[in-house]
Amino acid sequence: MQAEIITIGDEILIGQVVDTNSTFIAKALNKIGVSVYQITSIQDDKSHILKAIEEAENNVDIIIITGGLGPTKDDITKTTIVEYFDDVLVQDTAVLRNIESLWEKYIKQSLSQVNIDQALVPSKATVLMNRFGSAPGMWLEKNNKVFVSLPGVPFEMRALINDAVVPKIQKQFELPFIMHKTLLVYGIGESNLANKIEDWEDSLPQFIKLAYLPSLGKVRLRLSAIGKDKQTIVSEMDKQIKQLMPQIKDVFVGFDEDGSIEVLIGKQLAAMGKTLATAESCTGGKIAERITSNSGASVFFKGSVVSYATSAKVDVLNVDNDLIEEYSVVSVQVAEEMAKNVQKLFKTDFAIATTGNAGPTKGDADVEVGTVCIAIATPTNVYAQEFQMGNHRTKVINKAVNKAFEMLQKEIFKN
Amino acid sequence: MQAEIITIGDEILIGQVVDTNSTFIAKALNKIGVSVYQITSIQDDKSHILKAIEEAENNVDIIIITGGLGPTKDDITKTTIVEYFDDVLVQDTAVLRNIESLWEKYIKQSLSQVNIDQALVPSKATVLMNRFGSAPGMWLEKNNKVFVSLPGVPFEMRALINDAVVPKIQKQFELPFIMHKTLLVYGIGESNLANKIEDWEDSLPQFIKLAYLPSLGKVRLRLSAIGKDKQTIVSEMDKQIKQLMPQIKDVFVGFDEDGSIEVLIGKQLAAMGKTLATAESCTGGKIAERITSNSGASVFFKGSVVSYATSAKVDVLNVDNDLIEEYSVVSVQVAEEMAKNVQKLFKTDFAIATTGNAGPTKGDADVEVGTVCIAIATPTNVYAQEFQMGNHRTKVINKAVNKAFEMLQKEIFKN
Repeated sequence: MQAEIITIGDEILIGQVVDTNSTFIAKALNKIGVSVYQITSIQDDKSHILKAIEEAENNVDIIIITGGLGPTKDDITKTTIVEYFDDVLVQDTAVLRNIESLWEKYIKQSLSQVNIDQALVPSKATVLMNRFGSAPGMWLEKNNKVFVSLPGVPFEMRALINDAVVPKIQKQFELPFIMHKTLLVYGIGESNLANKIEDWEDSLPQFIKLAYLPSLGKVRLRLSAIGKDKQTIVSEMDKQIKQLMPQIKDVFVGFDEDGSIEVLIGKQLAAMGKTLATAESCTGGKIAERITSNSGASVFFKGSVVSYATSAKVDVLNVDNDLIEEYSVVSVQVAEEMAKNVQKLFKTDFAIATTGNAGPTKGDADVEVGTVCIAIATPTNVYAQEFQMGNHRTKVINKAVNKAFEMLQKEIFKN
Repeated sequence: MQAEIITIGDEILIGQVVDTNSTFIAKALNKIGVSVYQITSIQDDKSHILKAIEEAENNVDIIIITGGLGPTKDDITKTTIVEYFDDVLVQDTAVLRNIESLWEKYIKQSLSQVNIDQALVPSKATVLMNRFGSAPGMWLEKNNKVFVSLPGVPFEMRALINDAVVPKIQKQFELPFIMHKTLLVYGIGESNLANKIEDWEDSLPQFIKLAYLPSLGKVRLRLSAIGKDKQTIVSEMDKQIKQLMPQIKDVFVGFDEDGSIEVLIGKQLAAMGKTLATAESCTGGKIAERITSNSGASVFFKGSVVSYATSAKVDVLNVDNDLIEEYSVVSVQVAEEMAKNVQKLFKTDFAIATTGNAGPTKGDADVEVGTVCIAIATPTNVYAQEFQMGNHRTKVINKAVNKAFEMLQKEIFKN
């Protein structure tokens, strides 16, 4: 069972918007045993939309289309679909009622004609009700192929995928079992890792595929398998991972499917009943932001001081000015002091501190661009390390965040 | 002049990685007058890669391929390209020297055979040197079409696009002029905006296309034009925007091409010589993170207190416990107090404070999920507003961040 995802919108093709919709849909489909053959992003152009749908129909069983269903003149997906299916638009009463109730609740204005027109759907379509917006999802079938058209607004599309599309696909088709296990590995490069596990990789059974996904201080090592027999796949995957584990135990952090490193850290801290605070300079709040983007963070995360200016390190974090003058604001000494002080300020068990220069200019610091010091405070100890993380601002920030989580992870799984 | 971007990698098609590479490339190509006809993401599969390249060759003039050039066994793009061009691999001495110097500088280990093999390139290819990694870019030509293969690691790909691909395309082709102007509009919905400017939209000349891009409290209104005569395009765009401006002056924030709202705020604060701090509860550091992800933030941004736990609001931000007990931790009173106190703590001219419950559970707060209070402190005043931002965690956080920037923007352009 294969699918193609077609995302429609000029904004994607001029690089104004990152297409996160197809990522979400691909993940949801994979989970239920539907492989994604291709993702195609095309312009709001009738002939191109028709061509893409036709080609997809030749290659796959399920075609999921997002975008171009809004109320404005640049949205042409619905009329194009009507043409493709040689159909007509009819008003759907339930959709109109849904729009009316959304407008009453949130917009508090009377419906205009363009809003009312959102209730027009192809007569052959099964409507998928959109709880969050005025554009309904539409499910159509032709020559045993399924075509689903969804709005491009991410949270509307997501709800429709989860609540309507996935259950309907599962009901209608008999699906194989797809399994991915992704090992999060920190602190070793891609080719070193590949050398280390070469013999194991070469002896993997044919139906297990291995992939390396390196990024800024971490590598995700993904094993994938697809087949009819769930039991065989699960037990063979388990066996292979058990054989691999002793070879990577120093660098293995957890399984990606259980969450990112910050989620794994959060679960561990919550289980231990321990708390965390952060003091961030060059990472500018990104460590806190990554932690708090996950629900349940309030159980273990107390907060952060983003001491971006040097003065804030002194005024808010009580770092001794003499220490800064003696060792520089980017130094292991200052990082350690920041970690200790934020730990005290927020009354936590653990603390992370970062101080560095992400560039492109030297800023407050007198050190080279890319120099970052990271400190970890534990209930009994504090230590810091200095790193050189290159001269690319975003890269430096993200590398520093990943390295800080890696260092903390080592500490909390030790304690 | 049209291009297709082909991104290769199973990680994209199983939804493990968001394809940001194609966004970057699309933007870079657009800027120099190359339209992107289609973005296609496909698996690490030889026959599929060959099919995608062949189809792209039929549709466009320039084909940019990323991914699958790593040193590990799952990387098959290079051998597939060799097959497509009926070519052979030869060792490139300059590439080998580049790899050796990278290894000497950063990896500090001897080269293994897989690393040395990275210096093998198709004999017909022009090598594009990769300063940041071992996989070189490759430029090939056939039937007057250009094929470029680049590594998928984002910062390596970006450097190659900027330093090698873009200049080479500009040198080789005579390109038309593409212009986008995107107006950032906050505080009005898509269909209301469309109604408001309908007459203006209907009178736009044929060669100017209009698009609405709504997202969490803001709409980006994009005008696009392409043509040979730069002067005509620029002056007509200017004229149209001048006519539109009076109709949207209450909700217009700036041009997207000049930067996001936080960049526009930063520029204004820097020009005024004023400073900013933030106190963040439900936004968890995301306001600080968005500000500091831009270089130059240190000129105006002093820092933030992420007071995630209620205790941190008392201990670190000195919010009166009685105030919290009387009005609730999520209240305009507490938000105002947080803004005033963080302004004082960091000695800044302006401050933003957020307190709210992003959900999914009630957490420390006793208010409904989705309730958010945002306060702005100015040199002379402080005020706060309460909002209901729905029940979707990520959406609540991002809406709150956008609303906070919108409120601050209004204040600083007033002052």
